[in-house]
Amino acid sequence: MPLVDLDRFDFLYATRVKGMKSAVTRDLMATLSRPGIISLAGGFPDTKAFGEEAFREISQAIAPDAAQALQYGPTAGLESIKDVIVEVMAAEGTPARQEDVFVTTGAQQGLDLIAKVFLDEGDAVLCEGPTYAGALNAFAAYRPKIAHAPMDRAGIIPVAARETLMRARKQGIHVKFIYTVPNFQNPTGVTMVAERRKELLGLAREFDLIIVEDNPYGMLRFEGEPLPSLAALEQEEGDVDRVVYLGTFSKIFAPGVRLGWVHAQPGILHKINVGKQGADLCSSNLSQMMISSYFRNADWKSYVKRLNGMYRERRDAMLDALAEFMPKEVHWTHPEGGLFVWATLPSYLDATAMLPRAVAKNVAYVPGEGFYAGGAGKNHMRLNFSFVEPDKIRRGVEILAETIRERMELRSDMERGSRQGRSQKGAARSGSRASGAGR
Amino acid sequence: MPLVDLDRFDFLYATRVKGMKSAVTRDLMATLSRPGIISLAGGFPDTKAFGEEAFREISQAIAPDAAQALQYGPTAGLESIKDVIVEVMAAEGTPARQEDVFVTTGAQQGLDLIAKVFLDEGDAVLCEGPTYAGALNAFAAYRPKIAHAPMDRAGIIPVAARETLMRARKQGIHVKFIYTVPNFQNPTGVTMVAERRKELLGLAREFDLIIVEDNPYGMLRFEGEPLPSLAALEQEEGDVDRVVYLGTFSKIFAPGVRLGWVHAQPGILHKINVGKQGADLCSSNLSQMMISSYFRNADWKSYVKRLNGMYRERRDAMLDALAEFMPKEVHWTHPEGGLFVWATLPSYLDATAMLPRAVAKNVAYVPGEGFYAGGAGKNHMRLNFSFVEPDKIRRGVEILAETIRERMELRSDMERGSRQGRSQKGAARSGSRASGAGR
Ligand SMILES: Cc1ncc(COP(=O)(O)O)c(C=O)c1O
Ligand SMILES: Cc1ncc(COP(=O)(O)O)c(C=O)c1O
Repeated sequence: MPLVDLDRFDFLYATRVKGMKSAVTRDLMATLSRPGIISLAGGFPDTKAFGEEAFREISQAIAPDAAQALQYGPTAGLESIKDVIVEVMAAEGTPARQEDVFVTTGAQQGLDLIAKVFLDEGDAVLCEGPTYAGALNAFAAYRPKIAHAPMDRAGIIPVAARETLMRARKQGIHVKFIYTVPNFQNPTGVTMVAERRKELLGLAREFDLIIVEDNPYGMLRFEGEPLPSLAALEQEEGDVDRVVYLGTFSKIFAPGVRLGWVHAQPGILHKINVGKQGADLCSSNLSQMMISSYFRNADWKSYVKRLNGMYRERRDAMLDALAEFMPKEVHWTHPEGGLFVWATLPSYLDATAMLPRAVAKNVAYVPGEGFYAGGAGKNHMRLNFSFVEPDKIRRGVEILAETIRERMELRSDMERGSRQGRSQKGAARSGSRASGAGR
Repeated sequence: MPLVDLDRFDFLYATRVKGMKSAVTRDLMATLSRPGIISLAGGFPDTKAFGEEAFREISQAIAPDAAQALQYGPTAGLESIKDVIVEVMAAEGTPARQEDVFVTTGAQQGLDLIAKVFLDEGDAVLCEGPTYAGALNAFAAYRPKIAHAPMDRAGIIPVAARETLMRARKQGIHVKFIYTVPNFQNPTGVTMVAERRKELLGLAREFDLIIVEDNPYGMLRFEGEPLPSLAALEQEEGDVDRVVYLGTFSKIFAPGVRLGWVHAQPGILHKINVGKQGADLCSSNLSQMMISSYFRNADWKSYVKRLNGMYRERRDAMLDALAEFMPKEVHWTHPEGGLFVWATLPSYLDATAMLPRAVAKNVAYVPGEGFYAGGAGKNHMRLNFSFVEPDKIRRGVEILAETIRERMELRSDMERGSRQGRSQKGAARSGSRASGAGR
């Protein structure tokens, strides 16, 4: 089939397709599994830590119930896994009721279903700037406007969020929800401080909208004290109402089972249920049963502790290497948990343009651009520390620093060049002027 | 929280939510697992047939690769499962290339992604009438018009389909694709004859649109000769182009793993890829690896043969019981495979209204209404024969027949009553007329 034929159905595609773009990480996936490459790009947990033996045990444990594991299940999920989810949420400090839990095919599906249920074309979502690229992907299919409110080291800035909401209101734009990743945010690693969590809830009340709290990383804390979730804070204030909480087993157990959940009030869950029927009928019984067997019979909290020990070491390796190798013009965050560090390059550098060079040197990262809806973020990079061993992290950061330095030098050469150019031109000009004057 | 609060976010929901409705089968799910109930409602394969031992084997076989099974995978699916899919499609008579295969979280997700990629609000889809209710659910989120073309015992009627397409064209409605379940259709059990498959392809060419061929049941043939898929016919004619083929492991292996696929040309798959990233990132590696291990190492074709033997017996039990118990006013299809029989009641009966009565007598079925977009189909019922043992099928059909007969008698009582009423009124009227005349 000739290549020109590839887009012969262009006239048939839906308009939304134009606004949907492929994630750099997903496009890089083939490259990233190339032998020898040091990938600081993915958002991969280290699933080697789980172990073959543990895997054997949990799959053997559910074998007597194979007929159920292989069958369709209820749209909202099996009761047994909802019990586990209530337990996990309690361990995270959020009291949850089994009937407010709805099982999804990863938190990613939660994001898709929420967008499906709330967003008409032209509605808006208020996101952190930067925000999780996969959320932008999920939302894009429903064609909303995305407003970013800036973050600092304490999370999204409530004053800025409020201004954005006011502006939208004046323009007649309906902001349907605020989307936040409060703990060890993807991509920045930043955690929102407690005070701001309360302020965000206040904003949601003031503007009568929903907060989507996406919390895959809350339990991956290496140091410091856990902060209350927005869902828990709302309950303390006597409500279970406008916080839609998303959880996932991807980071505390394994992403390969594709299992997450939504915790929300029944009215919202009912709409999500109908959306999920159309999307994939139900999530895998096999995955649900393996997880509930594991969480009921094994010491899952020690496993999370073990992961945290490992990730902490890797984060330290990354922070140390950044301090050692990076030019002083580069800055980065110091996350207390999670998977990511966010590095900020001099504003004139373009991390997207630099990526092929880094990959040629066998290091990959995610350029900042994908974490903003509007093309901002070019001088940032997201660095993952959970997937690669400490010595490789060190080596990877060293190469990255080298690549950045090259670019900076290129730039100062060019500047020097253009300064010289300018002064030569200037000289030429003043020369010509002079000569002109001599004429 | 008071009940009135449940819908307090009504003003926040997207418009599309109003068009999305819950499937009767999904809503009935809790009822259907009630002990003692004979469910002819679900579309459940019999997963007990697979066996605990076989399950142990396949999960043990992938244990050495647990780290990969538990990890995120590529959006389009693992290479190993794509190889299996190519093999399955070849066994079904459709030559497929690995690079034209895209893995989905069940065929249901395939339907969602196709709708996402092709449908703008107000576009139309041409479906069989009746059609798979889950497809209507998936499509509804994108707010298309649904046009049903009627079927007979040989499948969708091409002349009627053509008329519908002509009418849409005249009205300026853009029909984006034809959706068909050509083999042992859900809900009718009807198989489209070969000639019509070619005619449908001709229509797609004439009107320059896509055909979505959804084929979960093709390999569940109990008798007669397999027919070429529309995808295979298109290839015979030298194209791989406008047939988007959906397959699934749900019926030849197990629905609990939630795994299916799309086979289409690269341009379309590229759009679907971007849609899937937003929907759930990737399908479960665990499911993919269990399936590829099983299909590579076990004799999957014998398993399908075994299922077919079992289902055939159950279909026969159902057809026999229908012939024995049903009033002569009731008609039904005689499927050569698949999971379903479609029964047609006298047009004055309402199978939706009758369902609570049947459930009270411990038998469930799916009323025909859900298989049409516009509220037609009330006097039909879909009867599943794959999930329940023959003697229960027999008993279930007997009870159903009883319930139908009750309704028919009620109706004739009422008719007699109203005839009597009419003749009494008539008598009264003529009496009064008479008396009036006597006045
Ligand atoms: C903030 C955030 N939300 C949601 C997800 C999706 O996770 P999953 O679908 O694996 O549960 C991710 C994954 O990286 C994430 O970082
Ligand atoms: C015609 C048809 N298509 C698609 C599906 C969805 O199947 P799955 O998502 O389990 O692959 C079904 C399930 O019953 C079906 O009958």
